[in-house]
Amino acid sequence: MASNKPEVGIVMGSDSDWSIVKKTVETLNDFGVISESRVISAHRTPEIASEYAATAAKRGIKVIIAAAGGAAHLGGVLAGHTILPVIGIPIKGGALNGMDSLLATLQMPSGIPVATVTLGSAGPVNAAILAVQMLALSNPVLRKKMLAHKRNMKKKVEKGNKRIQDDLIKNNNK
Amino acid sequence: MASNKPEVGIVMGSDSDWSIVKKTVETLNDFGVISESRVISAHRTPEIASEYAATAAKRGIKVIIAAAGGAAHLGGVLAGHTILPVIGIPIKGGALNGMDSLLATLQMPSGIPVATVTLGSAGPVNAAILAVQMLALSNPVLRKKMLAHKRNMKKKVEKGNKRIQDDLIKNNNK
Amino acid sequence: MASNKPEVGIVMGSDSDWSIVKKTVETLNDFGVISESRVISAHRTPEIASEYAATAAKRGIKVIIAAAGGAAHLGGVLAGHTILPVIGIPIKGGALNGMDSLLATLQMPSGIPVATVTLGSAGPVNAAILAVQMLALSNPVLRKKMLAHKRNMKKKVEKGNKRIQDDLIKNNNK
Amino acid sequence: MASNKPEVGIVMGSDSDWSIVKKTVETLNDFGVISESRVISAHRTPEIASEYAATAAKRGIKVIIAAAGGAAHLGGVLAGHTILPVIGIPIKGGALNGMDSLLATLQMPSGIPVATVTLGSAGPVNAAILAVQMLALSNPVLRKKMLAHKRNMKKKVEKGNKRIQDDLIKNNNK
Amino acid sequence: MASNKPEVGIVMGSDSDWSIVKKTVETLNDFGVISESRVISAHRTPEIASEYAATAAKRGIKVIIAAAGGAAHLGGVLAGHTILPVIGIPIKGGALNGMDSLLATLQMPSGIPVATVTLGSAGPVNAAILAVQMLALSNPVLRKKMLAHKRNMKKKVEKGNKRIQDDLIKNNNK
Amino acid sequence: MASNKPEVGIVMGSDSDWSIVKKTVETLNDFGVISESRVISAHRTPEIASEYAATAAKRGIKVIIAAAGGAAHLGGVLAGHTILPVIGIPIKGGALNGMDSLLATLQMPSGIPVATVTLGSAGPVNAAILAVQMLALSNPVLRKKMLAHKRNMKKKVEKGNKRIQDDLIKNNNK
Amino acid sequence: MASNKPEVGIVMGSDSDWSIVKKTVETLNDFGVISESRVISAHRTPEIASEYAATAAKRGIKVIIAAAGGAAHLGGVLAGHTILPVIGIPIKGGALNGMDSLLATLQMPSGIPVATVTLGSAGPVNAAILAVQMLALSNPVLRKKMLAHKRNMKKKVEKGNKRIQDDLIKNNNK
Amino acid sequence: MASNKPEVGIVMGSDSDWSIVKKTVETLNDFGVISESRVISAHRTPEIASEYAATAAKRGIKVIIAAAGGAAHLGGVLAGHTILPVIGIPIKGGALNGMDSLLATLQMPSGIPVATVTLGSAGPVNAAILAVQMLALSNPVLRKKMLAHKRNMKKKVEKGNKRIQDDLIKNNNK
Repeated sequence: MASNKPEVGIVMGSDSDWSIVKKTVETLNDFGVISESRVISAHRTPEIASEYAATAAKRGIKVIIAAAGGAAHLGGVLAGHTILPVIGIPIKGGALNGMDSLLATLQMPSGIPVATVTLGSAGPVNAAILAVQMLALSNPVLRKKMLAHKRNMKKKVEKGNKRIQDDLIKNNNK
Repeated sequence: MASNKPEVGIVMGSDSDWSIVKKTVETLNDFGVISESRVISAHRTPEIASEYAATAAKRGIKVIIAAAGGAAHLGGVLAGHTILPVIGIPIKGGALNGMDSLLATLQMPSGIPVATVTLGSAGPVNAAILAVQMLALSNPVLRKKMLAHKRNMKKKVEKGNKRIQDDLIKNNNK
Repeated sequence: MASNKPEVGIVMGSDSDWSIVKKTVETLNDFGVISESRVISAHRTPEIASEYAATAAKRGIKVIIAAAGGAAHLGGVLAGHTILPVIGIPIKGGALNGMDSLLATLQMPSGIPVATVTLGSAGPVNAAILAVQMLALSNPVLRKKMLAHKRNMKKKVEKGNKRIQDDLIKNNNK
Repeated sequence: MASNKPEVGIVMGSDSDWSIVKKTVETLNDFGVISESRVISAHRTPEIASEYAATAAKRGIKVIIAAAGGAAHLGGVLAGHTILPVIGIPIKGGALNGMDSLLATLQMPSGIPVATVTLGSAGPVNAAILAVQMLALSNPVLRKKMLAHKRNMKKKVEKGNKRIQDDLIKNNNK
Repeated sequence: MASNKPEVGIVMGSDSDWSIVKKTVETLNDFGVISESRVISAHRTPEIASEYAATAAKRGIKVIIAAAGGAAHLGGVLAGHTILPVIGIPIKGGALNGMDSLLATLQMPSGIPVATVTLGSAGPVNAAILAVQMLALSNPVLRKKMLAHKRNMKKKVEKGNKRIQDDLIKNNNK
Repeated sequence: MASNKPEVGIVMGSDSDWSIVKKTVETLNDFGVISESRVISAHRTPEIASEYAATAAKRGIKVIIAAAGGAAHLGGVLAGHTILPVIGIPIKGGALNGMDSLLATLQMPSGIPVATVTLGSAGPVNAAILAVQMLALSNPVLRKKMLAHKRNMKKKVEKGNKRIQDDLIKNNNK
Repeated sequence: MASNKPEVGIVMGSDSDWSIVKKTVETLNDFGVISESRVISAHRTPEIASEYAATAAKRGIKVIIAAAGGAAHLGGVLAGHTILPVIGIPIKGGALNGMDSLLATLQMPSGIPVATVTLGSAGPVNAAILAVQMLALSNPVLRKKMLAHKRNMKKKVEKGNKRIQDDLIKNNNK
Repeated sequence: MASNKPEVGIVMGSDSDWSIVKKTVETLNDFGVISESRVISAHRTPEIASEYAATAAKRGIKVIIAAAGGAAHLGGVLAGHTILPVIGIPIKGGALNGMDSLLATLQMPSGIPVATVTLGSAGPVNAAILAVQMLALSNPVLRKKMLAHKRNMKKKVEKGNKRIQDDLIKNNNK
């Protein structure tokens, strides 16, 4: 963590996915986890995809996150070239509302999992959280930050509850 | 056609797909089209997949047929490494009845099509017919055989109709 | 190619599909492939559909592309009257988001394939690319252009990657 | 009705559909409605399909029933060539459990309906009942028979109810 | 037809369906077919629904058209109380894009069909056309008008084709 | 409870549903809740359905349970004629695996709910449990029995856990 | 009812659901049923969820209503900790249009039902109506109000019908 | 690894899932990773579920694997009580072929991911592989074993390919 080297490698199929993937980068930043982001297409630049995954571990990457839509092969292609855990973010959008990317990311054959996270707006955040949880297994600082993250979520819910109670009182509903 | 070299390269993701892919081979044989069949996994042997597609044209292959199930990346991976037309057979089976393989085969990004054929028992035959139609564009012998194939299908329907008429007469149904 | 005669016949079910099919025409133009475009309805002008498909080969057409929505019978009807390869573009839209046109185009019976391409915005481009790949089997000029197309796609991805890297540096994220 | 000429024309896509379509014939027989049954494929024998539909009215046919599976174009193709009402029976089966044939039968474009009936075992019976309801509009004898059919259904339900009450009494459950 | 009495009874589940059902009325008007329109809810005014269907035939109604969304029971409830043919228009909209109303309209049990038409914008028109086809079985004037309707559709397609050809010439694309 | 009069009215669309509905009766019996069971079809005996629901409250029925498949209108029809809570069991089976009955039961319009329970084998048990929970609101004896039911479920899970631990020890896996 | 204590406990997974759940509160208010509303997350504040459900009965709550989206565990989690009837409102929205929340709410295991209501805009109203129906079992005042609610719905339909008739007369359509 | 303490905690919703989950245990055994297996129901024994997840980290568990079907809340409930990574195996089966468990496992809200793996027979193996990949991040022995696993998969594919080549030669097909 003291070093400057990225621990999480984020790969997206197209730069049009950047607005979504940005949330993954920001969430990792919130935990102080350094990441790198690359646009690599499983179909248009397959050699770069293979190369990226095959050399990731050597370059210090510990977790790979792949975001893609449609026939979302990116996570699977990367997983085929590495033994690092690969997290897949199915990108919603297109004609089938992301059901195609969900199934293409998730339904990997025996022996080569892609850890798939929520289809929809929670996906890019959850990919980051899952990556941090993996890194936290051997990093006590991250463990503490993750516990704080849990407490913050609780507070946010309680704040939401407070807002509703205020609204109810204002409307004389209770 | 006079030569012995395969013109169609058939790739399946697992040897368990062989009973299905066999029908593709047999249909090609019926047209006198020579094929080769390989078991190559997009995820387990990705380098072989890349290599196969990248060198197919040089070895005389003109059409590639890919059969795979689940997160069926095989067709897409091959299409990424070749400019030959790639035909995809989505393999039915597994938890989602093949809807996963259908979408993973079909929903390719702009610029890299996989020509997808029927999900279900008609798939392996239709892949072969489509390959022959492509080859027939520059092969008059195949064109004649394809016209004969059309006539044979008509005859089979008429024979089916005959069977029903006989059955109706037997049952005094008009 | 030197001649003026169209090699690809594009048929759409309604002139309201023209904004989509236009991309197919433009992509073919980019490769220097001459096409013709017709509005023919499988249900409203079935005789013209039969006639069109039955005479296409004689008129020099080598590949037929059919675009239709809903109970998209157009590709199937054309395929029933020709031995030319027929490519189907399922038109998204309507109540079922194109799942109806996808299945009606794809699920052809044994012996009569329709080569189905991506449901969604990639569809009309991919239909053109697939047609060019078929024509390129006996046309070395198209083969070269197709290789250039592959290189262009790579460059576009790399440009997209560059844009993200710049964005990351600007935001001090790397 | 005194004559021998069929009033209902039943068309099936393949003789393998006969075991299903037979129930349509038998239900029509129960009402004394004469039918003819033909195996005609929208894709394999398209000319016969066009001819059949185009000449049906002249030959005295009043209602056409089409049964097909997969990309079930049969009903739509027939409806394109006639102004007679066309009833569609989507045949269940195949990889998609009949969802493909349901949508390909139902989702006809504006102006050319196919009156679609139940996907599943009730389909062939309901196609016959619907045809009889149409014929009964100008046939008082059929109207009476249809009223009797309604009464019979009621009796069958009441008989089923009786069976359950007996079963409950036997088990001391009431 | 000389009389003033409606031959088609149109029932909608809510007056919010009126903008859709209006197209059914207008299409029937185009054929000179007199209709009546009622808002009757299968769940909120079930007695009126039963009464309406049970007395429709006596009042001269020959075909009933039911339009409803969600758990669209309206067509089925009406069909349970009459032997007239009942046409169902599944109303798209709501959380499930009309898949619920499609299945609730179509999947009727054995013996009680609802003739279901297109889910989507073609539905209200097709319900009217189907009703006219039924009435035309014993009405030669309607038969002629229906033949004219077919010709008009052809002309509209050809006009659409003309528009595309003009557009292509303008763009020097042919 | 001292009396003999049924508090729960169970209605099924066909006596073929009896093997499923029996589990509802048995579960109610386990709680000492008296029920009656009737075969009533929303489409074949609609008057009996209306009558049953309209008079249920007067006869002492407090909760109605409706089990039906396909275009499962039964729950909705009953709910239209009563202010008693109506619980719907969607019957799996048929061509669409019960997705049709699920949606036809659940998607009721505003103001007329059907309390839908699990599609599948848990459905008939859960309908009974839900009915008992409603009755327990004003019945302390049932409340106690329901608490015992919860404890029994816990014990069953713990027993299942015990079985696995034994199995693991036997296989030396722990 | 004379007291001030809430009888219905409404729980929502996030304060962003409040605009939807408000309709449940308002509908209960219309019946004079007092409710309380809480924001509690099954995943972010699981201890509060357990506590809330476990103590609800003691605090006088008779029915719990849970509204949640996505992997909607809220209803199930609450049902696991109480013997009160739990009503589930699947919140539409997100990538899968609410199909995920529908199934996650409905498909509860044997012994622990969640009474699921309409997915879509009718859901929050129907949850309230179902709760009132349960309370009305031992509350004659609510029973009367519920009968009035039924009459009001009828009047609203009749008013809708009146509007259409006026519109038709204005357009000379009858 | 030298110790005897389990590093992976496997939880299943019912002992009927044991035949599936066993494959997870066996795969972990193949890597020398010690696991414990518990039957805990999110709905029937929710306190045990909370307790298990809340204390897992303290007891040395590093990764939790949850297997459940239907409204599969187990993974989500466990994830709500721990900061350890939670892997979800959606159990296929039941009325909806596992689509319910897939969505209920995957569609977790922002901040609380469940790493979902393949629906179907590959699921239990892939959950184990993913867990080992996470542990391997700080365990060089596991890293080596994982590389060997990759090589073994390759060999298996090549063996499958060999079998097909032999079959082809035997049938004189090449």
